[in-house]
Amino acid sequence: MSDPNLDEIRTLIRELPGPDLEAATAVVQRQRQLTKPPGSLGRLEELVEWLATWQGRKEPQLRRPRVAVFAGNHGVAAARPVSAYPVSVTAQMVRNFIEGGAAINQLCQTYDADLRVYEMALEEPTADFTRGPAMSHGEGARAMAYGMMALEPGLDVLCLGEMGIGNSTAAAALACAAFGGEPEDWVGPGTGVDRGGLERKAAAVREALAANREALSDPLHLLCALGGHELLAICGAVLAARLAKTPVVLDGFACTAAAAVLTKADPRILDHCVVGHVSAEPGHRRLLERIGKRPLLDFGMRLGEGTGAALIIPLLRGALACHDGMATFGDAGVSGPV
Amino acid sequence: MSDPNLDEIRTLIRELPGPDLEAATAVVQRQRQLTKPPGSLGRLEELVEWLATWQGRKEPQLRRPRVAVFAGNHGVAAARPVSAYPVSVTAQMVRNFIEGGAAINQLCQTYDADLRVYEMALEEPTADFTRGPAMSHGEGARAMAYGMMALEPGLDVLCLGEMGIGNSTAAAALACAAFGGEPEDWVGPGTGVDRGGLERKAAAVREALAANREALSDPLHLLCALGGHELLAICGAVLAARLAKTPVVLDGFACTAAAAVLTKADPRILDHCVVGHVSAEPGHRRLLERIGKRPLLDFGMRLGEGTGAALIIPLLRGALACHDGMATFGDAGVSGPV
Repeated sequence: MSDPNLDEIRTLIRELPGPDLEAATAVVQRQRQLTKPPGSLGRLEELVEWLATWQGRKEPQLRRPRVAVFAGNHGVAAARPVSAYPVSVTAQMVRNFIEGGAAINQLCQTYDADLRVYEMALEEPTADFTRGPAMSHGEGARAMAYGMMALEPGLDVLCLGEMGIGNSTAAAALACAAFGGEPEDWVGPGTGVDRGGLERKAAAVREALAANREALSDPLHLLCALGGHELLAICGAVLAARLAKTPVVLDGFACTAAAAVLTKADPRILDHCVVGHVSAEPGHRRLLERIGKRPLLDFGMRLGEGTGAALIIPLLRGALACHDGMATFGDAGVSGPV
Repeated sequence: MSDPNLDEIRTLIRELPGPDLEAATAVVQRQRQLTKPPGSLGRLEELVEWLATWQGRKEPQLRRPRVAVFAGNHGVAAARPVSAYPVSVTAQMVRNFIEGGAAINQLCQTYDADLRVYEMALEEPTADFTRGPAMSHGEGARAMAYGMMALEPGLDVLCLGEMGIGNSTAAAALACAAFGGEPEDWVGPGTGVDRGGLERKAAAVREALAANREALSDPLHLLCALGGHELLAICGAVLAARLAKTPVVLDGFACTAAAAVLTKADPRILDHCVVGHVSAEPGHRRLLERIGKRPLLDFGMRLGEGTGAALIIPLLRGALACHDGMATFGDAGVSGPV
């Protein structure tokens, strides 16, 4: 088999399946009969419709939720101090994931979700994108293909997360290139940099955009030029999930920024995704407005690792339990509106 | 034992215990050592601090969550069409709760929470408050005492909810009397009334305030004059929970409106309560601003039954799991900030 290349990704994007409206309609029809005022479960009802639509099932289910966390290193973080933490923390945190000591481990255990951690050549960071592309097209295509491996038949929902020291700078560069505005609109404290750190992040974004001007007009080239291994893997997982009929829950700023670039290839490309939370990273709210996504939670979280996506799993379970288990007005002998 | 009276409630309010700051401090100190940037779990960290503070435990826990749903009938709903549903639906829904067919049953089962439904003399609704007090002081005190029975030793959190056709009108009257403004500021569609219904609700609130003018200056008198059995039971449960060191999750507009009146007796009286969600009922957001509470979810729900409170149980479990189970920087060999 030859290496994956970007043309194959383009073909895949053109052939993505659309919504299963028949399944969605079946859900809406049942919801009308349940013992509650119409629409009174709000977003819980929307979530069931969304699961049905993208699982392609009239009776959506959530037996097998997976959380996939991709970890990668960024040349820009080695080249200049854009993070509050040293680059070595990416690998240390991957070890922490494997040993079960991170926040995402606790959430996956509590919510009975399958956690997979994908370590992406941490000893081979991307190139410093302030001097040229972070990745070649081949390297980017391989990272996307790697992300596709997070899918397998039978997954009911996929929560996506990342770990990568420096990746909030890469995410800001992606967002700025794809959605416009100034670097200062998109950089934020990340793991906790001070004002000087913010200025360094904005400068890195500005230089990265200048150094990669020829890549900015094509979304896949842009991802290769300004992304990172873990960010492109997230894009690959988003695409593979659509094919596999696995609805996706996106996490925070870095995760959403990577996926958001795909909307420049097809505005409907994230229709099978919800966003778990709006992060404390200020660029995230701005980005969600640009791609028309309403986050489910607003908890001031800014950890990554998929934590803001994993929190949605029990809410989905609750939504499905109401949908499946509630009595209808007829069954329960409850009067409808006068 | 003589009947409970409002003076006993007043004594209880004066003697409510304050926060356990030592427990809160222990939690904050542990959080600083966990493998994440400081504060990066946002409200999950706040929730653990809150549980510690009001459970009075340095190691807060959530083994026994309870959801208590109080159901009562309102004279005003029998006297005029302020709801989209007939008054008989209150009793029908109580039967639905008992038979396990309502939304709250499914959520409690999914989240392994103990559901208690308290049916409060549904065949004896309160008096029509547009013509005088809904309840006597003795009747109000008994309803509050009844609500206190939802507590018992060993509960780790109490989620409060209600069911009562017409109670969004009673809640609007309580909010308008306690927090000012016009009836139109506080009435909303409830179960789904149209514009005419909204006008009828506002008129009922206006008449209720006029008919109970002498009660409005005292929060407990106000609750008796404009509340309902289930709403006063919620107030009683809030007070008993404080004594029992059981943190409380409030639900939507009716639940919060009842509890909010208590802040007029003591502004710190709801410090042991969080609000599960902001309801689609427009008065709820306004009310939360007045009492300085930030809701956890904004899901456009408007069902009541404690549904918007019960959804918080798994989020609390996730927050505690992170707090209890995460490795420290030292244990995991993860570097701190540079």
